[in-house]
Amino acid sequence: MSSPPVIAVTSGEPAGIGPELCGMLAGKQWPARIVLIGDAELLASRAALTGLHLGLRPYAVNNPVLPGTLEVLHVPLATPSLPGVLDARNAAYVLQTLDAAITGCSKGEFAAMVTAPVQKSIINDAGIPFSGHTEYLAEHTATPRVVMMLAGEYGGSHGTPASWMRVALATTHLPLSAVPAAVTPALLEETLRILHADLRDKFGFAVPRILVAGLNPHAGEGGHMGREEIDVIEPVLARLREEGMQLIGPLPADTLFVPHQLARGDAVLAMYHDQGLATLKFATFGGGINVTLGLPIIRTSVDHGTALDLAGTGRADPGSLFAAMDCALAMLATQEAHS
Amino acid sequence: MSSPPVIAVTSGEPAGIGPELCGMLAGKQWPARIVLIGDAELLASRAALTGLHLGLRPYAVNNPVLPGTLEVLHVPLATPSLPGVLDARNAAYVLQTLDAAITGCSKGEFAAMVTAPVQKSIINDAGIPFSGHTEYLAEHTATPRVVMMLAGEYGGSHGTPASWMRVALATTHLPLSAVPAAVTPALLEETLRILHADLRDKFGFAVPRILVAGLNPHAGEGGHMGREEIDVIEPVLARLREEGMQLIGPLPADTLFVPHQLARGDAVLAMYHDQGLATLKFATFGGGINVTLGLPIIRTSVDHGTALDLAGTGRADPGSLFAAMDCALAMLATQEAHS
Repeated sequence: MSSPPVIAVTSGEPAGIGPELCGMLAGKQWPARIVLIGDAELLASRAALTGLHLGLRPYAVNNPVLPGTLEVLHVPLATPSLPGVLDARNAAYVLQTLDAAITGCSKGEFAAMVTAPVQKSIINDAGIPFSGHTEYLAEHTATPRVVMMLAGEYGGSHGTPASWMRVALATTHLPLSAVPAAVTPALLEETLRILHADLRDKFGFAVPRILVAGLNPHAGEGGHMGREEIDVIEPVLARLREEGMQLIGPLPADTLFVPHQLARGDAVLAMYHDQGLATLKFATFGGGINVTLGLPIIRTSVDHGTALDLAGTGRADPGSLFAAMDCALAMLATQEAHS
Repeated sequence: MSSPPVIAVTSGEPAGIGPELCGMLAGKQWPARIVLIGDAELLASRAALTGLHLGLRPYAVNNPVLPGTLEVLHVPLATPSLPGVLDARNAAYVLQTLDAAITGCSKGEFAAMVTAPVQKSIINDAGIPFSGHTEYLAEHTATPRVVMMLAGEYGGSHGTPASWMRVALATTHLPLSAVPAAVTPALLEETLRILHADLRDKFGFAVPRILVAGLNPHAGEGGHMGREEIDVIEPVLARLREEGMQLIGPLPADTLFVPHQLARGDAVLAMYHDQGLATLKFATFGGGINVTLGLPIIRTSVDHGTALDLAGTGRADPGSLFAAMDCALAMLATQEAHS
């Protein structure tokens, strides 16, 4: 039997709920060695504050497997952190934890990385340009194009089984006014190629079916409400369909998410942030995850923020972090089955 | 005891599911006289085709109340209509049914109007400019500004009660590229005044609480992703709050719809179509309704389309039409209680 995979978990903004959520990983048996990346003292004290008494071991490559324990790759804080109190002096620390995870994944020391939330604004306040994990990971793995996908289970009441909703974005953190010009044929084609390849290779869909939203209301209604569907989206879809991709759309976004439509696809490609994520977060409340597609490494994340008001209370819900762990493990298993 | 209100129901596109949905109204006892507006022969034959045998009476102002029957205000088709087959020659007919309802409401002959779906494209193909019921009603009642609001019940599983979701739109059927410039201070102020007044006077919220979405992802994140929140939305909200309006926001649209946020308000104001309606339609699937606020008359509607593929099969779901009837009756009762 092969040894269990080593999963790196970055603990995120020290003033937020990330450190205590990381401690909660000890509450479940995982088929993996878990390596928390962060300040060892912070992780221990935040766990104690929230009622957990962890046996944290220093990480070493060849540590033996000890189920139910967590390892720590120590990255020291610049200054002590209080729950809920942001401090720009720790901004560089947060990025150092990401760097350690990226390096470990790139070297093959870690099989995947899972990220707790960071606080973008305090990193910017420290004078460091940073627009999010997704963009940072792309840059630091020299990947020219990545795709942000959120996913989660929904439904499952009234005797029906739960379903997965997966929503990838063609554009992410842009002002709305910049979105129409950003949706170019090249962007769409690259995004669809990445989404298609990762759905196949990391999620196990032999021939992924992708539901593509239009850009305009009612997908432009035949050009009456915007022409981007006709001029940009449809030609790209037609070209990629000729290669065998299963692409459905462009569909009106407001009716794309009704159950009989969702059932026709394995993932949705939304053209922009709020078009896709409002429904996903409503549907999966608390249990959604964020996956970066197109990277040379596996990276999943919680889909919530730092929740500064909850930090240190122990009331933060680890559901999204657990789901991100599950997803990373499933992607890893799929990837190995394909290789 | 006062006589029951007279509710006009326009039967919509004759090739769609509207005529047969109208017939299904006979299957429930309503505290109202229902007057269908459309071709009497079409309504009878489409009902028969879908297995209903209706006793339709010609409408007259002073008809006696006969529970369980439907009255018909006959507007003749230009040419016979087949289920699923659009014919531009009947485009003017569709608008004539709306005109009859508007006239009757304006004269006080009808207490409210409920509309079945029309097919915008075939009206346009007939050379008639028409961008939707909402805009048509505004023009034909000489109302300078109306607000489109969709609403529906959701949830109600796992032992929790169902909740109402109400989503009004600052802009409706515009290309996405035209949205940022259309969200002006004047538009926002007028929209919020109408929404506030109608939530109070027609929906019975003494001090309505309105959740206002931002325009940009993350509501602009302090200006890092667009400045419309700072330059346009926040000043309008601040001004109207001084008048006592309860306005929460601008909020990031992707987290606005999670339950603990939704519970803080009676309605959401989304800045544009897909930002608000994708989640609403996911949450209320099949049971949502469309209400036009700011009109001098009460108008509610189904929130679905003509479903040409279902027309004549009898499999169309009347849930949205029934909900639109219920909503019109409730609005009427609230309005009367206030007057």
